[in-house]
Amino acid sequence: MSSSAPHSERRLRAGIVGGGRGAFIGAVHRMAAELDGRAEIVAGALSSDPQTAQLSAADWFLRRAYISFEEMARAEAAAPEGIDFVIVAVPNHLHYPVVRAFLAAGIHVVCDKPLALSVAEGEQLAPLLASGSLLFALTQTYTGYPAVREARALVAAGELGRLHRVMVEYTQDWLREPLETQGQKQAAWRTDPARSGQAGSLGDIGVHAQNLLEYVSGQTISSVCADLNRVVAGRQLDDDASVLLRLSGGARGVLVCSQIATGDENALSLRLYGSKAGLAWHHEDPDTLIHKPAGAPWRRLRRGQAYLSDAARAATRLPPGHPEGYIEAFANLYRAFCADVCRVKRGEPPLRDYPGLEEGLRSLRFIEAVLASSRADSAWTTVGTGR
Amino acid sequence: MSSSAPHSERRLRAGIVGGGRGAFIGAVHRMAAELDGRAEIVAGALSSDPQTAQLSAADWFLRRAYISFEEMARAEAAAPEGIDFVIVAVPNHLHYPVVRAFLAAGIHVVCDKPLALSVAEGEQLAPLLASGSLLFALTQTYTGYPAVREARALVAAGELGRLHRVMVEYTQDWLREPLETQGQKQAAWRTDPARSGQAGSLGDIGVHAQNLLEYVSGQTISSVCADLNRVVAGRQLDDDASVLLRLSGGARGVLVCSQIATGDENALSLRLYGSKAGLAWHHEDPDTLIHKPAGAPWRRLRRGQAYLSDAARAATRLPPGHPEGYIEAFANLYRAFCADVCRVKRGEPPLRDYPGLEEGLRSLRFIEAVLASSRADSAWTTVGTGR
Amino acid sequence: MSSSAPHSERRLRAGIVGGGRGAFIGAVHRMAAELDGRAEIVAGALSSDPQTAQLSAADWFLRRAYISFEEMARAEAAAPEGIDFVIVAVPNHLHYPVVRAFLAAGIHVVCDKPLALSVAEGEQLAPLLASGSLLFALTQTYTGYPAVREARALVAAGELGRLHRVMVEYTQDWLREPLETQGQKQAAWRTDPARSGQAGSLGDIGVHAQNLLEYVSGQTISSVCADLNRVVAGRQLDDDASVLLRLSGGARGVLVCSQIATGDENALSLRLYGSKAGLAWHHEDPDTLIHKPAGAPWRRLRRGQAYLSDAARAATRLPPGHPEGYIEAFANLYRAFCADVCRVKRGEPPLRDYPGLEEGLRSLRFIEAVLASSRADSAWTTVGTGR
Amino acid sequence: MSSSAPHSERRLRAGIVGGGRGAFIGAVHRMAAELDGRAEIVAGALSSDPQTAQLSAADWFLRRAYISFEEMARAEAAAPEGIDFVIVAVPNHLHYPVVRAFLAAGIHVVCDKPLALSVAEGEQLAPLLASGSLLFALTQTYTGYPAVREARALVAAGELGRLHRVMVEYTQDWLREPLETQGQKQAAWRTDPARSGQAGSLGDIGVHAQNLLEYVSGQTISSVCADLNRVVAGRQLDDDASVLLRLSGGARGVLVCSQIATGDENALSLRLYGSKAGLAWHHEDPDTLIHKPAGAPWRRLRRGQAYLSDAARAATRLPPGHPEGYIEAFANLYRAFCADVCRVKRGEPPLRDYPGLEEGLRSLRFIEAVLASSRADSAWTTVGTGR
Repeated sequence: MSSSAPHSERRLRAGIVGGGRGAFIGAVHRMAAELDGRAEIVAGALSSDPQTAQLSAADWFLRRAYISFEEMARAEAAAPEGIDFVIVAVPNHLHYPVVRAFLAAGIHVVCDKPLALSVAEGEQLAPLLASGSLLFALTQTYTGYPAVREARALVAAGELGRLHRVMVEYTQDWLREPLETQGQKQAAWRTDPARSGQAGSLGDIGVHAQNLLEYVSGQTISSVCADLNRVVAGRQLDDDASVLLRLSGGARGVLVCSQIATGDENALSLRLYGSKAGLAWHHEDPDTLIHKPAGAPWRRLRRGQAYLSDAARAATRLPPGHPEGYIEAFANLYRAFCADVCRVKRGEPPLRDYPGLEEGLRSLRFIEAVLASSRADSAWTTVGTGR
Repeated sequence: MSSSAPHSERRLRAGIVGGGRGAFIGAVHRMAAELDGRAEIVAGALSSDPQTAQLSAADWFLRRAYISFEEMARAEAAAPEGIDFVIVAVPNHLHYPVVRAFLAAGIHVVCDKPLALSVAEGEQLAPLLASGSLLFALTQTYTGYPAVREARALVAAGELGRLHRVMVEYTQDWLREPLETQGQKQAAWRTDPARSGQAGSLGDIGVHAQNLLEYVSGQTISSVCADLNRVVAGRQLDDDASVLLRLSGGARGVLVCSQIATGDENALSLRLYGSKAGLAWHHEDPDTLIHKPAGAPWRRLRRGQAYLSDAARAATRLPPGHPEGYIEAFANLYRAFCADVCRVKRGEPPLRDYPGLEEGLRSLRFIEAVLASSRADSAWTTVGTGR
Repeated sequence: MSSSAPHSERRLRAGIVGGGRGAFIGAVHRMAAELDGRAEIVAGALSSDPQTAQLSAADWFLRRAYISFEEMARAEAAAPEGIDFVIVAVPNHLHYPVVRAFLAAGIHVVCDKPLALSVAEGEQLAPLLASGSLLFALTQTYTGYPAVREARALVAAGELGRLHRVMVEYTQDWLREPLETQGQKQAAWRTDPARSGQAGSLGDIGVHAQNLLEYVSGQTISSVCADLNRVVAGRQLDDDASVLLRLSGGARGVLVCSQIATGDENALSLRLYGSKAGLAWHHEDPDTLIHKPAGAPWRRLRRGQAYLSDAARAATRLPPGHPEGYIEAFANLYRAFCADVCRVKRGEPPLRDYPGLEEGLRSLRFIEAVLASSRADSAWTTVGTGR
Repeated sequence: MSSSAPHSERRLRAGIVGGGRGAFIGAVHRMAAELDGRAEIVAGALSSDPQTAQLSAADWFLRRAYISFEEMARAEAAAPEGIDFVIVAVPNHLHYPVVRAFLAAGIHVVCDKPLALSVAEGEQLAPLLASGSLLFALTQTYTGYPAVREARALVAAGELGRLHRVMVEYTQDWLREPLETQGQKQAAWRTDPARSGQAGSLGDIGVHAQNLLEYVSGQTISSVCADLNRVVAGRQLDDDASVLLRLSGGARGVLVCSQIATGDENALSLRLYGSKAGLAWHHEDPDTLIHKPAGAPWRRLRRGQAYLSDAARAATRLPPGHPEGYIEAFANLYRAFCADVCRVKRGEPPLRDYPGLEEGLRSLRFIEAVLASSRADSAWTTVGTGR
């Protein structure tokens, strides 16, 4: 529950691109980035619409509001009290140009997933980060939950033995109707290949499942056998998907994502089965991790308790029994990122204890393999490694 | 909670083959068959070992004990107070010969799943039942749960709208170790192709998942894309399986079965997602059915309540809140079967409201398609229809 | 899961008084008594209405049907193949005369709770049992659950340390309307002081809570501070009660029972808190016991698992994960009782591992203390000990 | 999910007294006060220890750090950019003097519960607030949960009918050992009558239960019958309590609070039973409210869903299924308070949609009645109304 990370003499200054009025994720970034009092959003290009940008900036009491992200990158890089890092919260097709602009201006970046629209596009960001002087975080939020970190720690400590079976699901129902034809802005861009990329539910939530699985298991998905579906008539992208998995360490299993799973909210769950124990985590009860040792009673591990690993204990703010949630998990990514920004400012090496370029590329490669498998009548397809 | 099924002037007389000391399922058959006081087991060939057969028969106070099922079929058919029906609770490879012997002797049969070792073998039973004068029930037990019947009724009434996604799982962990090499009798025959057939976990529990899904959804599985696994070293049959599904009505989904899922007991669960609602049922909370109407709160339907369908209300014995379980579900199959036996005795047509030959053949065809798919590197494979 | 209790050469013969058509509990007694195949109900006086008695006897294929329990006691005691024991399933006011009649006839008795209408009445049964040659069981059913037995074993083994706080509840809602004025037979006698005694909800379900608490904790309730309520207008007996408790070992706590708790089914639950651990059991998930060791994760103990105590393992019939319920718990009382009947027949001393006269008297004394406290404006009132 | 509350031209400036390093609640106040970006803590007297005060102020990047709260009140009232309101997060015995100092200086106040050490002390604050120009909020945090607000809205809308039974509990275990003798600062002052007042667990958590019950039910507790306990040897204040309740509208029930309930974290729960429905809310699953309509399935209401009341929908920040928790609930009090500060600044009447003086006095009167009842051997004791 402590936060002894070294910090600077002042709050870090952050900027944000996207996330203005009408966007769900913008406010979440603000709450998460500022939760620990280590950073403050002071500048933004919150919308491409000038009036929305202005009103949104006023909502947030920003000191500097921009219409153009290019201008923002230039101006902030030049300003004596310019931002220390930028948050990228725009639709998918803009991730690449915005990230590129800020990295090129020498500004650290926190970016929504996915990294880019394609592996090829994502790989073009690598050279900009190659020097190691710039920081880049991808907000794979679910890895921020303390119970997820405990799960990872248990697997890493060998508590599960050899991992045999994995099950990961992310089901929700908000796209069960064709909202994109009814003026719903969030639905519109997410179901539009030009703005969202070639993957629908797979890119929106499937990669959260993929990333969570790889994060906790310590294994990567090596090949996939996928069946994508478009349930809602007229929709161009998948809104439902089932994928058989084979993992680098020999485990097998299933990944399911769906945005038409009527009645489910954000039902992300992960179940692992090893030779010595099973593990289960459900997003709807995020403070709890179920540990199932072979031949013994299930153990209910709870956020905030002293018996947890260091990693899990470092990622919490409240005593056990006072529920934490999504914002706090999100804030854990920012906590680590801000500590790294301070380290870099002091000339120390960053720890990079948050998802970054590599995780972003892995998700894009996973997407491409799933799309390829589904097109090939569910043929087993290898997930690229970039080598 | 009523039981107005017509009944005879006396308890029906039942016999049993298999299920002696050391067998789990024998005692369950006895409890289930006798629970409603409509039948009594009076004769048996409980073991091929004479001493076990004798001791087991004494345990149950049987009037007539046999060593050989052939002899039992002959003798009971000839006896003036012979059995009305026989229960077949032997390892899989004996299902066919035992069932055949009793049907040939004109005795109604209740048989453990699977119907037989292969589709071909199973189909040979069809002519014996063709006249319609003999009754045959296959103990696909899980269809006996009142909440499962409510689920089926809700789907049939159109409450789910068009079905889009299905998820069915049966995970357990009792074969996570190579018990078959350690003298465990149950494990020994289940992992032996000669006695269990070509499917391991798939045949033992996967078909329960398949049958449950088809029973509730009212759709059949039309094609499969399967990945069978043998986790425990040296095992000849699958102990873990993932299967992508496509259903006759257009739904898609996943079936998982595993006997190496450490920490799980008999975690059978079914989730359906339709255009109007979702449904979820979990075997560990069998008296509850979760109904998830689109845009509205989940409804927790409970066994025994007056608001349930006739089908669900007819399948219960206790008021809501007094838990029922596996034996009661099992007994629901016997209740319907015994009522049919009485109907036939009175010259009335049977209702056949329990799984039978057709369900048994469907499971065998499903198994063969899954095996074929898995052998073909998970190629989509059509499930035969027998036509 | 074993059943090595010694048994006789034949099924025991049981009779039943009460429990005919329209009575919920009669069929439960039959199922529970016969579940293990150790006893068979062969005779009964199922109703005081001759036609109901006759029809009910036919439903159950009884060999001998009576109208009068006195006649039944006489006749069965005299018959060469008379019953070994009788089941008493009549409204409360008849418990005493029926039990008395059969004990006087030398026949063992299993009786529904409460023992009698008053302590005074109950104490008159003591002399009939004083010789020790007759067996008497009171069906405090909930003590039959394996998880409850595990709880008792854990407390007895000192796993909770010193017990500090107890919470026991039994809430249901079936009397939330004045069913007794609407022709509902069950409600009619339960709300009628002449047939039910001076306690309403307290006598019907409160004593189950009291008995469960004392059974598991190993302590007796020494004094009470009670607030009885009659929620439904016109009702003569309590339908809702809250009671502060002090226990013989120093623990304190609360007992709540209610029959007007809208939405609850049979929500019996027990929570204990000791210096070393807490325990929780909920009737709606009867196969699970939650063990909460201080400073460590909760442990979820499950019926049927090998890690349980002998007492819990002996009280089960199915592998873990195949749910057991109320009938099976009830049958555990019969299992122990029937084993005792066999012991007595063989001239061996009975084990009396089921609730009996003493537990019945304790409940009656608890009721009287609660009634006295409530009448005295909730003054602390000592529960009598009979000494 | 909207936040259309009118706001000022700048973030509000807040100060804080107490809450420095080592205090749990200080950081929670900061996160909650700042979560919506409407306020910023700029000044503080975070500790009476000068060095701690200085370090804590640096941790939070405060602009102005004080050692003395009197000096802070004076200075901030005089400063041109002084604070708009102060947060009081000190041990109980300091609530009164600190609140008094800031109110006297004309500064709005947000104060931890309890209001004061006694009713008499609390009533002395009334004159300072009588003019209506100053705002006062008491952080009865649990009323900030959206699901709690939904519960209140359902009761107010008559969905429960006439309320008959209430059950409220707050159990935790952190004081199961004598931490106060082991140098634990939080335990030391909470178990010390001089700093905590005459009530231990009752004042620390019991009043949360009392407030939650009254908030949701819309009834006040009119009389109590209480049994306080001191479980840990040597402790001067209660650490465990059971209280029978009678409510102003006729409902009866039980309140339990305990800090020695081994294994429980912050197990606050509320259950209400009315003539038409029951309701249940559990702090460990805060986004869920269970609605139990008579004779119908339970309905699981979820935070963020469109079907909820305006009050519940206004108190949320995330879509359903992205868990919210304690900080967000806490922030809902600040959201309403800050909106009121802005209203007052604009000359508009405040809405006072948060707990205040009256709620604080009610809790103190409840405490005094419980203490009196417990001293009087649990005699029923009327809760004062201040009239």
